[in-house]
Amino acid sequence: MGTKETVSVLGLGRMGSALANALVEEGYEVSVWNRTPKTIPNARSVATPQEAFQSDVVVTCLSTYDVQQPLLTGEIKTLVNLTSGTPDEARRTARWAEDNGVEYVDGVIMAVPQQIGTPQARILFSGNENHHVLDAFGEPVHVGEDAGLAALYDLALLGLMWSVFGGYLQAVALMGSEGIEPRTFTPMAMSWLTEMSTLLPEMGEETQTRSYETDVSALDINVSGLRLLTEANEEQGLDTTLPKALHALFERAQSNGHGNHSIASVIEEIRK
Amino acid sequence: MGTKETVSVLGLGRMGSALANALVEEGYEVSVWNRTPKTIPNARSVATPQEAFQSDVVVTCLSTYDVQQPLLTGEIKTLVNLTSGTPDEARRTARWAEDNGVEYVDGVIMAVPQQIGTPQARILFSGNENHHVLDAFGEPVHVGEDAGLAALYDLALLGLMWSVFGGYLQAVALMGSEGIEPRTFTPMAMSWLTEMSTLLPEMGEETQTRSYETDVSALDINVSGLRLLTEANEEQGLDTTLPKALHALFERAQSNGHGNHSIASVIEEIRK
Repeated sequence: MGTKETVSVLGLGRMGSALANALVEEGYEVSVWNRTPKTIPNARSVATPQEAFQSDVVVTCLSTYDVQQPLLTGEIKTLVNLTSGTPDEARRTARWAEDNGVEYVDGVIMAVPQQIGTPQARILFSGNENHHVLDAFGEPVHVGEDAGLAALYDLALLGLMWSVFGGYLQAVALMGSEGIEPRTFTPMAMSWLTEMSTLLPEMGEETQTRSYETDVSALDINVSGLRLLTEANEEQGLDTTLPKALHALFERAQSNGHGNHSIASVIEEIRK
Repeated sequence: MGTKETVSVLGLGRMGSALANALVEEGYEVSVWNRTPKTIPNARSVATPQEAFQSDVVVTCLSTYDVQQPLLTGEIKTLVNLTSGTPDEARRTARWAEDNGVEYVDGVIMAVPQQIGTPQARILFSGNENHHVLDAFGEPVHVGEDAGLAALYDLALLGLMWSVFGGYLQAVALMGSEGIEPRTFTPMAMSWLTEMSTLLPEMGEETQTRSYETDVSALDINVSGLRLLTEANEEQGLDTTLPKALHALFERAQSNGHGNHSIASVIEEIRK
């Protein structure tokens, strides 16, 4: 234990607490700080962020950059920033770190607190490749030197997650309005998702080459389908925020000349 | 061949043509009709829908119910309705069939035309369980007596698909705005989707019991994330229709007291 670095964790929400516990588990000498005092077994609670900065590595896991920024006053050796934010926020922090001689790693945790410390917890990180503290949390994957990249992957993947969850809940509500229970519908939804997932590489390729010829399913028929979906949700007295947004976006691509093109052509509306 | 029923297909778009070809393959005596004359190898083209109605089974695969409805005048023995519509449209057609002594099957094809005739083509159907003609198209699954149920499953699953595709294209656009190519991002998106899919049974269960306690991820943090996602898309000059719609929906659930609850609680806003 003597040769291991000392590590501090700032922010003891669900995720921060899981991180601190994982570090203790791994045999690090751990200090913790939280705005409202909280303890972690076998870790030392400190009264100020500045005391925490004495450690070789400082891990931050705060609610927002607005909360984090004012705390980062004092000398820090290595900052492992796991607070969620936009790529720009990560880059500003990276510049601040560079100006202040702080080694900087920006990471995002693609896992729930219960998975921390297991190989299921994927940690995407960018900036400095020096990441051994991250090994305590799960499976670190370096996505690039640019400090903003981890935040970019995070938002892109979470955005996909929220779309899936929103779409699933809308579908469950629609099925439920006719008395079909989630346990009947969900297995079908899961195998359907798996099937849809296999279509993504070709869709991605089309967005890259911008050639949207299709003999499978033209946008026209999908726009009609989205209108039917919106109508069906309305008929059942359900909220239509999501179906309407999808319909509006797809319809815009249709009216801009993509009616005979594949669904991938919708990206032309998103990009501009 | 002599003992097989005669079958007509009305509507020879991509899907209708695939259906007619599959029936010919299976040895049925096939007649086809399309608004603008079209031929299918080894099928007989007829000039009017009424000629097509002479067949034992009439399969319709038209663009909409508005197109289909005026065509259904004359005596039909068995109607296999594969035209896409809402559950209500299917039920109206079922009532019309009952009033006119027509055997009625309402089906939806959860596959692309290229899959027709293979076990990958899942055909959900409701109404009459007498479905042997559907065997020629793929793997039929009876989802209930109520004629509207197949259309309901169809819309629910397609809605999920459009959410996934919309969310994926938004993510690809965001990654692309920083120079990350789809072929780099997509494998991560696919394994992420698989992981998300495993969370659906619990989420479905929560919507059923309406108990949304969570020690994983509260709505509050997801609403903050959706705000960041919207900002990041704006910073990159991208369209924000989808992130904004998701943010609006999730935020409404938050302001109605679900901030500490799981994401599943968003269904309370959809059901409203």
